[in-house]
Amino acid sequence: MPQTLGEKAVSRCNQFKHPPYSEEPGALTRRFLTPAHKAALETLIGWMHAANMTTRLDAAGTLIGRYEGTGPKTLLIGSHIDSVRDGGAYDGALGVMLGLGVVEELSLQGKRLPFAIEVLAFGDEEGSRFHASMTGSRSLSGTLQDDPTLLIDEDGISMGDAMRAFGLDPAKLRTSPRRDDVFLYLEPHIEQGPVLEAEDLPVGIVTGIAAQTRLAVTLTGMANHAGTTPMPLRKDALTAAAEAILLVEKLTSAAQIVGTVGALTARPGVGNVIPGECVFSVDLRASSTAARDQTEQDFRTGLAALCDRRGITHEVKRIQQLAPCLCDNHAQTLLAEAITAQNQRPYPLASGAGHDAMSLSTLCPVAMLFIRCRAGISHNPAEHVDAADVDIAARVILEFLDRLVEKWGDGGNSGFK
Amino acid sequence: MPQTLGEKAVSRCNQFKHPPYSEEPGALTRRFLTPAHKAALETLIGWMHAANMTTRLDAAGTLIGRYEGTGPKTLLIGSHIDSVRDGGAYDGALGVMLGLGVVEELSLQGKRLPFAIEVLAFGDEEGSRFHASMTGSRSLSGTLQDDPTLLIDEDGISMGDAMRAFGLDPAKLRTSPRRDDVFLYLEPHIEQGPVLEAEDLPVGIVTGIAAQTRLAVTLTGMANHAGTTPMPLRKDALTAAAEAILLVEKLTSAAQIVGTVGALTARPGVGNVIPGECVFSVDLRASSTAARDQTEQDFRTGLAALCDRRGITHEVKRIQQLAPCLCDNHAQTLLAEAITAQNQRPYPLASGAGHDAMSLSTLCPVAMLFIRCRAGISHNPAEHVDAADVDIAARVILEFLDRLVEKWGDGGNSGFK
Repeated sequence: MPQTLGEKAVSRCNQFKHPPYSEEPGALTRRFLTPAHKAALETLIGWMHAANMTTRLDAAGTLIGRYEGTGPKTLLIGSHIDSVRDGGAYDGALGVMLGLGVVEELSLQGKRLPFAIEVLAFGDEEGSRFHASMTGSRSLSGTLQDDPTLLIDEDGISMGDAMRAFGLDPAKLRTSPRRDDVFLYLEPHIEQGPVLEAEDLPVGIVTGIAAQTRLAVTLTGMANHAGTTPMPLRKDALTAAAEAILLVEKLTSAAQIVGTVGALTARPGVGNVIPGECVFSVDLRASSTAARDQTEQDFRTGLAALCDRRGITHEVKRIQQLAPCLCDNHAQTLLAEAITAQNQRPYPLASGAGHDAMSLSTLCPVAMLFIRCRAGISHNPAEHVDAADVDIAARVILEFLDRLVEKWGDGGNSGFK
Repeated sequence: MPQTLGEKAVSRCNQFKHPPYSEEPGALTRRFLTPAHKAALETLIGWMHAANMTTRLDAAGTLIGRYEGTGPKTLLIGSHIDSVRDGGAYDGALGVMLGLGVVEELSLQGKRLPFAIEVLAFGDEEGSRFHASMTGSRSLSGTLQDDPTLLIDEDGISMGDAMRAFGLDPAKLRTSPRRDDVFLYLEPHIEQGPVLEAEDLPVGIVTGIAAQTRLAVTLTGMANHAGTTPMPLRKDALTAAAEAILLVEKLTSAAQIVGTVGALTARPGVGNVIPGECVFSVDLRASSTAARDQTEQDFRTGLAALCDRRGITHEVKRIQQLAPCLCDNHAQTLLAEAITAQNQRPYPLASGAGHDAMSLSTLCPVAMLFIRCRAGISHNPAEHVDAADVDIAARVILEFLDRLVEKWGDGGNSGFK
């Protein structure tokens, strides 16, 4: 029985779960510039050639499979082919397989579009080997600033040496030129969250990738004997932190954004001593910078007030601040039409996680199609997608291509530029 | 210039801060059955003999200095002579030095009371060498159940072997007989809390040692991506724990008891993952068992409700439950009179910390006199008492002895039995 496009993409992802495509048997670990990465590229190249694509590797090890069009413009479709340690089969890889699958379908139909399609497989998005992530997409967009000789993996190998061993030239990493022919990057990706499942929908249209702020908070009170210090005389850093945690929850819920205290340490951390110090993280993410920044401001104000009331001193450090990335409106409209044509309800949602699309947004307009994953579980061997959902995603992308052609021809005079 | 009784007691405590009375230079560490313990006993024995006392060591290494009376009954005064690692000079030792000081004063005056006074220096209260505390007082009261061959210190030495090396017979440890002649144990001790300082008082009358319950709570939610999981779909174990921490604070404050969450671990404990599990301690202490148990019950009810609301499963284990120890009412009345006679305001307060008096309460009525310590700091080199406060404590004890004689003569027909 012939496979659907969805079954084929899922089957290829599952094939890539095992050696030689994983660094270890029994688990999927495929890090940047490893033999597992090379094996994946070799197999992908074979599939691409079979689909009448030309292939090349850029300086960052991104595999680019090109399916020529009749006009000069280029549409990019893809995602990353690397994984976290002991990760899931679909995070990243599914987007690559879907790009490949729709080109195979066009090739099978002998169909050429007024624009070329390049299927991208970024070699590093997760940053699971070197302390740098999105190396592929940052290099392609010309925004990479890292020095590959200074990024060292746990075996003491620099990214520069690993690149040379892989046949790449690290000197070209930061000089990858912007290309005027590219008019859009479309990234299909599993949602890695529970929203589509809760809405009972196979796919969703990403409106943008969240703006993020990470804070490190230190509260200092007074460690004291748990038995001899009356409640009104305490300066308990942990009860203050508890109020702050609930404040994050309350403010972010009210603003309909997300906020998380994921790491917390109370010191000295023994049962019969009142905690004198408490250190915790705050992670705020929102579609809009304004909503994120207002929440940060409200948190700082509320924290100052509660610490003041409790006789606690506090320090808030901003560790990271990332601007949001907005997905192209025209592309969102076309995706919505394509989803409706597949008898599904178009559902817009923000991405709380970072993606290659974020880096590529400095090169060209970007669009993302999310595919439902079970229970929102990702970065985990239990990661799962239904082939039926993936098939709908493939059909949506083919429908999207038809509409691109219909509305903007070769993309040269489109609304994307 | 002659020293006051307070100055003398403080000076002796300070002398005992250094080698040979401490195991290490620059810090006070005097653990059970160490050479530092032996050095302290030898010096104490010299002082006791100089004050016309006879001395002996019981099976648990408790030094007992006896100042004979004219009648058959015995009053015990004392505390422990061991310390925590890098501890303070007054925790325990001050009670021993005060007992010795008042006997020296009686001896100097050539005064004999209708009852004997035994000054006790327990060798182990802190449990800082072996995983057992109050070995001295539990042995004296005949309630010790520990097998000294099974208690091993960090160097692999058993308590039994350490006792033999110290010249003690571990076989007699659990057979120390109750003694019918003892009618009261009085323990002077630093408060180790901030209440007397807040009340601007040198001493306080302990009403009892708190009933204690220790709980271990485990909350289990669902670890998930901090960016992709909307607030309403989360099962965050740490926000649930935050509510529980504030519930402990609210319930104990309302009941005017104390409650502490001192240890907390959130897992996996990284900034961009919603905590799926949170483990924390709850320490509840109250003068009355009823108040403590009602608070525990209210906590369990509130915790179940908040976990239910948040989709979190919870488990509460009771790790320890200690009955309260009530101080003798007659002794409290006499202490109040003695304090008033010293032109001070009698102030009753509960002890949240455990003391040897707790163990001895199975042998005889007990009383405790607390001495103010700076900022409530204890188990710390910064532990500090004012000699003027200690002098008031010494005068209060002498006054208390006079009143004991006046009201109950030899103690034989007193209200204590």
